[in-house]
Amino acid sequence: MTFQALPGFRDFAPEDLAFRNHILAAWRRVARRYGFEEYDGPPLEPLELYTAKSGEEIVGQLFDFTDKGGRHVTLRPEMTPTFARMVSARANGLRKPIRWFSVPQLFRYEKQQRGRLREHFQLNCDLVGEAGPLADAEVIALAIDVCRELGLTAADFRVRLSDRRVIQALLVGAGLDPAHHPAALGVVDKLERLDPEARDRAFAGAGLMDYIDAVVDMAVVRSWDQLEDLAERYRVDVSATELRQVHDALGEMGLYEFVEVDLSIVRGLAYYTGTVFELFDRQGKMRAICGGGRYDTLLQSLGGVDLPSVGFGMGDVVLGELLKDRGLRPAAAAGTEVMVAAVTAEDLPATLGLAHELRDAGLAAEYAMNGVALGKQLRQADARGARLAVVIGPDDRATGMVQVKDLHEKTQVAVARDAVVAHCTATLGTS
Amino acid sequence: MTFQALPGFRDFAPEDLAFRNHILAAWRRVARRYGFEEYDGPPLEPLELYTAKSGEEIVGQLFDFTDKGGRHVTLRPEMTPTFARMVSARANGLRKPIRWFSVPQLFRYEKQQRGRLREHFQLNCDLVGEAGPLADAEVIALAIDVCRELGLTAADFRVRLSDRRVIQALLVGAGLDPAHHPAALGVVDKLERLDPEARDRAFAGAGLMDYIDAVVDMAVVRSWDQLEDLAERYRVDVSATELRQVHDALGEMGLYEFVEVDLSIVRGLAYYTGTVFELFDRQGKMRAICGGGRYDTLLQSLGGVDLPSVGFGMGDVVLGELLKDRGLRPAAAAGTEVMVAAVTAEDLPATLGLAHELRDAGLAAEYAMNGVALGKQLRQADARGARLAVVIGPDDRATGMVQVKDLHEKTQVAVARDAVVAHCTATLGTS
Repeated sequence: MTFQALPGFRDFAPEDLAFRNHILAAWRRVARRYGFEEYDGPPLEPLELYTAKSGEEIVGQLFDFTDKGGRHVTLRPEMTPTFARMVSARANGLRKPIRWFSVPQLFRYEKQQRGRLREHFQLNCDLVGEAGPLADAEVIALAIDVCRELGLTAADFRVRLSDRRVIQALLVGAGLDPAHHPAALGVVDKLERLDPEARDRAFAGAGLMDYIDAVVDMAVVRSWDQLEDLAERYRVDVSATELRQVHDALGEMGLYEFVEVDLSIVRGLAYYTGTVFELFDRQGKMRAICGGGRYDTLLQSLGGVDLPSVGFGMGDVVLGELLKDRGLRPAAAAGTEVMVAAVTAEDLPATLGLAHELRDAGLAAEYAMNGVALGKQLRQADARGARLAVVIGPDDRATGMVQVKDLHEKTQVAVARDAVVAHCTATLGTS
Repeated sequence: MTFQALPGFRDFAPEDLAFRNHILAAWRRVARRYGFEEYDGPPLEPLELYTAKSGEEIVGQLFDFTDKGGRHVTLRPEMTPTFARMVSARANGLRKPIRWFSVPQLFRYEKQQRGRLREHFQLNCDLVGEAGPLADAEVIALAIDVCRELGLTAADFRVRLSDRRVIQALLVGAGLDPAHHPAALGVVDKLERLDPEARDRAFAGAGLMDYIDAVVDMAVVRSWDQLEDLAERYRVDVSATELRQVHDALGEMGLYEFVEVDLSIVRGLAYYTGTVFELFDRQGKMRAICGGGRYDTLLQSLGGVDLPSVGFGMGDVVLGELLKDRGLRPAAAAGTEVMVAAVTAEDLPATLGLAHELRDAGLAAEYAMNGVALGKQLRQADARGARLAVVIGPDDRATGMVQVKDLHEKTQVAVARDAVVAHCTATLGTS
């Protein structure tokens, strides 16, 4: 066996799959508390679903091919177009706001580098049909609560919160014509990663040399106080903006300590129309954990329904790295709860029957299949992490009893055969 | 939005995804009771992983392509080669028997026809490192218990159980040289679907015209009694065969009524070496729900470890059709448990705080985001299926109380604000 998984793809052995399931279970649990319903689409989709939204340039990053029926298809690189198709087909019959989430595996042909995979799992949450700022606060709170559910605190991560409408009002205040705003947002999006020289080149390339100070003054805003100072300078009123209302609503939910106003966050994607946000580890060592915002025109521009929407995507890779970094990867749970052991070969039929009864009662039960000695069966019970061992021998069968060993407490009791399932259930239920 | 999912691929809207999750959750629950651990691999794999096992002919059924790095890759059509790679890489460090399961989505470019999809989810269970018949009984019992867990009974489905070793002993008894056994098994595999004329042509094509009666006599065996009669005719002793032991072990587990000896079951795949079985609906209207068997030489032949193995695959499509046919598709669960309603706009901050506390306590809570009148909020609560509505008004805030309406019981009580989370948790816990 010389084959390996493809570069950028992961094999999930049981200990890795348990960690993945730990993350995905938290995603699902928190999404349901927020009233979200899960959906899914195919991992293989028509290529045009993505080029219609992102243009032909995206094809260079895709696992695309022509199938045996001559269709140009691709592994899905994101969930939004599939979501737009599905929700648009049903929107008339759905109660608003529509709250849908999904946990798809997504695929991009990324250049190989450390920590960059070609597949990942992503929590996608979208709230459709509600234009007000409480909808934005709702999905941001959901993203925060997923991280809290996994054990992260305000010392571990933060939400960087911005709003394109506020940014545009400030740029207008600084005298920048709206026609130049997309170019300005493009530079802001890269600003953190540029040294001063590269920064100047980026402004020159965008035709914004006269606005370097105005754009930089805006992009360094990191708090509500700084924002108010800057707004006052440009005579812009930010007191009743959606940004203020989203911020306040998160405060009412008790999540104030997780949120920072940060006008360097614009999100690279052209379709955001208002609130934009990203979650980062506090130390700023990692890529974003999560990103999202309001996209009120996207569904219609894709040929779907005309409904305001807000949503986000959160991947499993950076989140998983942060959890490991903080010691929050849980220990693997023991698989087996009860080992049923036979003293002699003649006791084996009785062990089969009892093991099956235990399983029918919902317990994880095993037994030795190969007639090994009792001592070895009990060592197997330990190795499997079993709390209980039920031993059945010829004498027990004659008297209608079995011996139940508690391998944690190092105790042994004789229990009537008819009562052993209840006994094991009760013991394990209180462990 | 004119795009649709590709032919043979499914969109899972929330009601469909809930049904899929109902099946997958039962798979995982029962597998864990049997001590199985979950793993997963990539949905995209090197093509040679499958041609090494199945030959070049399989390529015609695959979603294969050349990726941007020049690798010939394919969507996975089955899980066994991925399993073989993963388990072989770790086999030395794993306790035997190894019990692993997975629930991958698999892909085949099938000819389009009714009820034939190009993707499905499949429960894969494999037990490695144990050659005895109890291992075979273990995975068959697991497959039966999955169906029982979903509400199916012995009136709904049955296991058709056979063993290639018994079939081969009978064919030798009938005078057929072992060199012709693979051809005979190939005809038996198709026999049920052939009319008499096509049957004769199949025997002629396999060079087995002189053995039609012997092969057919074998293939019509449908019970242990019929098998013993035939074995006696050929002076073959089947009393201590693995087939008998598997059958008896399933009886000891209380599963006798689900199992029928059926020598027409041979499984088309060349690599089975002993026990083979399939699960079918009792009415015989549908394709197999599940198929599997013992494959003691496959892992090594793929270049992996030399360990005896037994396993099966169970898809979600036929199983789902059977559940629907038997009225066992569960009603969709209500998404929201508590609706928090504000009497005036000034009460909204308090509703945000309370809704978040309810969510932190694990309850599914919603609130109206758009300042609609109280009556409409309560109708929304009904529409969302919420059991409880918590109403907060100016008077309540002044007195530190809230009103809790039980929408099922049509009752209302005033509860102290500090006690409302506990009150809701207790009420919903007993509903």
